[in-house]
Amino acid sequence: MSEYIPPSVWTWDKASGGKFANINRPISGATHEKDLPVGQHPFQLYSLATPNGVKVTVMLEELLAAGHTGAEYDAWLIRINEGEQFGSGFVAVNPNSKIPALMDRSGPVPFRVFESGAILLHLANKFNAFMPTDPIAKAECLSWLFWQMGSAPYLGGGFGHFYAYAPYKMEYPINRFAMEVKRQMDVLDKRLANNRYLAGDEYTIADIAVWPWYGNLAMGIQYDAGEFLQVQDYTHVQRWTKEIAQRPAAQRGRMVNRVTGKPESQLHERHDASDFQTKVQKS
Amino acid sequence: MSEYIPPSVWTWDKASGGKFANINRPISGATHEKDLPVGQHPFQLYSLATPNGVKVTVMLEELLAAGHTGAEYDAWLIRINEGEQFGSGFVAVNPNSKIPALMDRSGPVPFRVFESGAILLHLANKFNAFMPTDPIAKAECLSWLFWQMGSAPYLGGGFGHFYAYAPYKMEYPINRFAMEVKRQMDVLDKRLANNRYLAGDEYTIADIAVWPWYGNLAMGIQYDAGEFLQVQDYTHVQRWTKEIAQRPAAQRGRMVNRVTGKPESQLHERHDASDFQTKVQKS
Repeated sequence: MSEYIPPSVWTWDKASGGKFANINRPISGATHEKDLPVGQHPFQLYSLATPNGVKVTVMLEELLAAGHTGAEYDAWLIRINEGEQFGSGFVAVNPNSKIPALMDRSGPVPFRVFESGAILLHLANKFNAFMPTDPIAKAECLSWLFWQMGSAPYLGGGFGHFYAYAPYKMEYPINRFAMEVKRQMDVLDKRLANNRYLAGDEYTIADIAVWPWYGNLAMGIQYDAGEFLQVQDYTHVQRWTKEIAQRPAAQRGRMVNRVTGKPESQLHERHDASDFQTKVQKS
Repeated sequence: MSEYIPPSVWTWDKASGGKFANINRPISGATHEKDLPVGQHPFQLYSLATPNGVKVTVMLEELLAAGHTGAEYDAWLIRINEGEQFGSGFVAVNPNSKIPALMDRSGPVPFRVFESGAILLHLANKFNAFMPTDPIAKAECLSWLFWQMGSAPYLGGGFGHFYAYAPYKMEYPINRFAMEVKRQMDVLDKRLANNRYLAGDEYTIADIAVWPWYGNLAMGIQYDAGEFLQVQDYTHVQRWTKEIAQRPAAQRGRMVNRVTGKPESQLHERHDASDFQTKVQKS
């Protein structure tokens, strides 16, 4: 393989990039004017059922299931493959043009929260829920929450991209990121060998953050990489994944803003608890 | 270029990996028994002056400069190129074997906090400092803090690895990550065009988290990539970077656990405020 020599100044070649090349850009900001819809509930979520999106819908469903009626929400679909994250309304809620993005309209002045981890923490603080009060368990919860935020880019933007989405297969990047993802799974496996949940005995936002990424991987449904990464070997991750998958709120949260998979698993938008029964697809 | 076909099951080839190949592994946990030293102060930090390490030493120095005497700390050096993060003592503090890792010994029961973002948040909560109290500004602070955690892996583990550390240069990964890093710089630049700091008027843990990564990049000292990424074009990031660089606490924080660069910039360990003057290198 002949070595590539980078130019002294990088330039944008719009022709390269593989799947999602049309939505990857070296500049930020809106590409077109488009307002976002606003519903009646205190929380307005603009999202898609990727793992990062599912974190927030699971959290909101868990809050509602725990009796926090103030967590009622409208979940609006943002089709990232169609560039809807570059509309002016969305960029105003998340200047980083990534889902999920949340408007908190529960108080006198609506305000934005973006980044899935920030949204989870904001909601946990607001409702005093799914976050331990004991300082030691709280430190564990925060450590594992941030562990997820710093680790998943190696799973998604690293392994997932090069294994599943890049325009051709490259050995070195696949090896690099496969090794790191296996290490991450082993970190989780050792933690869950001795703890029911990541922060200890209590189900917290750390689990809610990690499950959509590493639980999906453990189930073999993320990048179809179950055999390649031998995910069945991480038996404690498997046990934890299945336990969370049985929670009704997790099952509902997975459905919201989903546009792929079996039709009965898709709820394109969520505006009311009854939507899960009627499955009105409003998009 | 002939296409690579991944095997059905990934296997560990210990010969590949480029720089840092010896410290990248597909399994977690300790490789050897080694206790960590413990000093007299409430906080025991085990770290190295990478951008993630510098976040925490800047925060601790800012807390001390603001009069929070309870933030006194011992900073111990962890030489990651020598595998010290795989010692049993370090793994007990951070099972993910990454610096920085903190023991909070300020209360009756010592406990760990790992992941730089979790450490910043833990300290901000504990001292009620560098975090806005206004709910809207606080949501901005959390959003940008988590933005850093989710974005920097594309800068460090993505761009930096393929541009500076991989065993040979690969065009596609360099392009992919250069584009994303330029987009991230543009996101910051637009935010800082209209705001003195990331969360607004107030200097917060969001700035403390972002500055060691994107400020270093803006200064051209991260991966020697200033020309390649044309970092001088991000004029608002430049303004913000220089403003923070003038803070004495930021200047001190950058020195702690540093083992590269000019000798006068290196303070291998920090145990007392006077160490910055005497520069006793205890390692």
